[in-house]
Amino acid sequence: MTDVTIAPEGNFITLKAGERTARFHAIWLRDNAWDEATRAPANGQRLIALRDIPAETRVSAAKADGQRLTLTFAPENKTVEYDVDWLMQSRYDRPQETGAGWTGEGIETWDSGLMARVPQGDFTAVQSDAGAKRDWLAQVARYGFGKLTGGPIENGALFKVVDLFGHVRETNYGRHFEVRTEVNPTNLAFTGLGLQAHTDNPYRDPVPTLQILYCLESSAAGGENMVVDGFRVAERLRSENPEWFDVLAGHCARFEYAGEAGVRLQSRRPMIELAPDGALIGVRFNNRSAAAITDVPFDKMETYYAAYRRMGEIIDDPAMEVTFRLEPGESFIVDNTRVLHARKGYSGTGKRWFQGCYADKDGLLSTLAALEAPMAEAAE
Amino acid sequence: MTDVTIAPEGNFITLKAGERTARFHAIWLRDNAWDEATRAPANGQRLIALRDIPAETRVSAAKADGQRLTLTFAPENKTVEYDVDWLMQSRYDRPQETGAGWTGEGIETWDSGLMARVPQGDFTAVQSDAGAKRDWLAQVARYGFGKLTGGPIENGALFKVVDLFGHVRETNYGRHFEVRTEVNPTNLAFTGLGLQAHTDNPYRDPVPTLQILYCLESSAAGGENMVVDGFRVAERLRSENPEWFDVLAGHCARFEYAGEAGVRLQSRRPMIELAPDGALIGVRFNNRSAAAITDVPFDKMETYYAAYRRMGEIIDDPAMEVTFRLEPGESFIVDNTRVLHARKGYSGTGKRWFQGCYADKDGLLSTLAALEAPMAEAAE
Repeated sequence: MTDVTIAPEGNFITLKAGERTARFHAIWLRDNAWDEATRAPANGQRLIALRDIPAETRVSAAKADGQRLTLTFAPENKTVEYDVDWLMQSRYDRPQETGAGWTGEGIETWDSGLMARVPQGDFTAVQSDAGAKRDWLAQVARYGFGKLTGGPIENGALFKVVDLFGHVRETNYGRHFEVRTEVNPTNLAFTGLGLQAHTDNPYRDPVPTLQILYCLESSAAGGENMVVDGFRVAERLRSENPEWFDVLAGHCARFEYAGEAGVRLQSRRPMIELAPDGALIGVRFNNRSAAAITDVPFDKMETYYAAYRRMGEIIDDPAMEVTFRLEPGESFIVDNTRVLHARKGYSGTGKRWFQGCYADKDGLLSTLAALEAPMAEAAE
Repeated sequence: MTDVTIAPEGNFITLKAGERTARFHAIWLRDNAWDEATRAPANGQRLIALRDIPAETRVSAAKADGQRLTLTFAPENKTVEYDVDWLMQSRYDRPQETGAGWTGEGIETWDSGLMARVPQGDFTAVQSDAGAKRDWLAQVARYGFGKLTGGPIENGALFKVVDLFGHVRETNYGRHFEVRTEVNPTNLAFTGLGLQAHTDNPYRDPVPTLQILYCLESSAAGGENMVVDGFRVAERLRSENPEWFDVLAGHCARFEYAGEAGVRLQSRRPMIELAPDGALIGVRFNNRSAAAITDVPFDKMETYYAAYRRMGEIIDDPAMEVTFRLEPGESFIVDNTRVLHARKGYSGTGKRWFQGCYADKDGLLSTLAALEAPMAEAAE
């Protein structure tokens, strides 16, 4: 049962469809009309701008009939049909999320408990089967990382992983970079040290939002890869001490890298980044490239440092980490705006050869959404 | 005259150097030590993490001597020397900017008055002379756009512009895209229409932060390029109506593009983006790819639409626009996080061929900072 009523001034309607009720403003409805004069049928691009819609737009007539809502707008005297389901899915007359650090339903945060079910796909299946690709990309979107096994063992194979969903982000490090380590008794003391988990290139704005690390050789014992969910770290910090969460989210840190001639990369962004409505959208953490913090007032600096220290402690907590070993032909991808990564220390001698590159989330999420779209339509 | 005193608990010092006085916390000073055990001399990367510095770090001894400050930290009993100028440049014990929409001193906002002095460089000079390159990049950083004249007239010449400072951001549109228009009496009515000024690809997250448009052919009258400073637009909106500025900065808009098979790009970001301390860091505006706005509560939606409308009116105001015509071999670059661009209508017939591509600001600002660094050091 669908029912519609127009507010006395015509500036909004109230729509009831089954159990759901929501109000929609006339100007929003007119702006979101899907008729051919408003939206290009081929690609959905809006053909008009807000300047083409009268500011005094009102609903002058409304009729609901099952899945179809028909509205007439004054002063244009324009009649438009809407799909009631689309309206209800797009409704904004609902409680909005506002707490600092919330995440949407597409995100599932994790700790070491995820080790029993590391997100994973098979390279050949993902490359050849749309369903397998969709499932693997969906895991990466949900958990912020994913392994890929069974790939080719050849120089540049990592680009075939990127080709599955998007494009390489080239930087001053090139289209890719080499991570070669020879672990022998002479350098074991140095290479045997693990790295603290970090996000890559926080001194870059925009940061590369994805990183791929691809294993081509791995004969040394140890050297496992390790990942930590920065979103879970932020959640835990917030539950332990909301003031600490707020001080890291509320002030910019600074990062810098000037290790090559002609390069002086600098950024000014918070370690915990929120959207204006408090949604958790990014984490940056990297002791090596952290520059002097100068955007925190004197009175808050000790609190800031206490929070920064605690964030590092949570990152270092073994209860937060998921570790896995990559064999030649295996790779993993991390969402570099969310998941920190590191390499564990070595316990033996041998060779390790990885290739790494950066890419961006826009392509990955777009490919995933396109793969999921027909399914969503079929389910209606 | 340099003077230093230690606070009774040793948790901060007060440093006086000439006219300047600033306090610095012990933990901040220890974290920002530049000795070889803390920072790699070759590339400046920090070799330790905050976990390696005791939480109870205090200054136990301090001595100031001209440009040199010598501190000893307890409980490490570690003595470190600091450059007083570096400390004063990095001081955080100062009034911090907090108002919504402030911009740093490196940014100069503009309106049509800038047309008398459009930021500009000569391709050959910028390519061959470090000073000319620095000056051109500095203008792009300050104003958010810049012309480049006298470049080669050949397919792919735009990549030579990107090579001056960074790397192409490849997307689903390729490494570059073609903008070819044949203006004749048949299609004049359509192609003669100008486009509303916009930022590109707001449905991408991260957005491409730079765009290059390169002219290879331009025989049609009209079709000038036009740019509008989105930061000045935001400032004007704020001065006209702070509530309208706040409602656009305080809520996410949504953008979408699904015009090709396999592509469904979606983003959720505000039209006016602020850093946590209110710094203005981005503008997104594009009627064609604006999706339904669903993250604004019902009670604020009419205010949001009024603000969105007014923002568009300010963008459309001729007093805001700078126009210029590109001839073959000329190009321009825009900071796509700040400056809106558009093409004006045609008034005659002929051909127009542009090539466009995206790149990122990290490389441009890094190249500029590296070019400016030796100058800054020489000036000390």
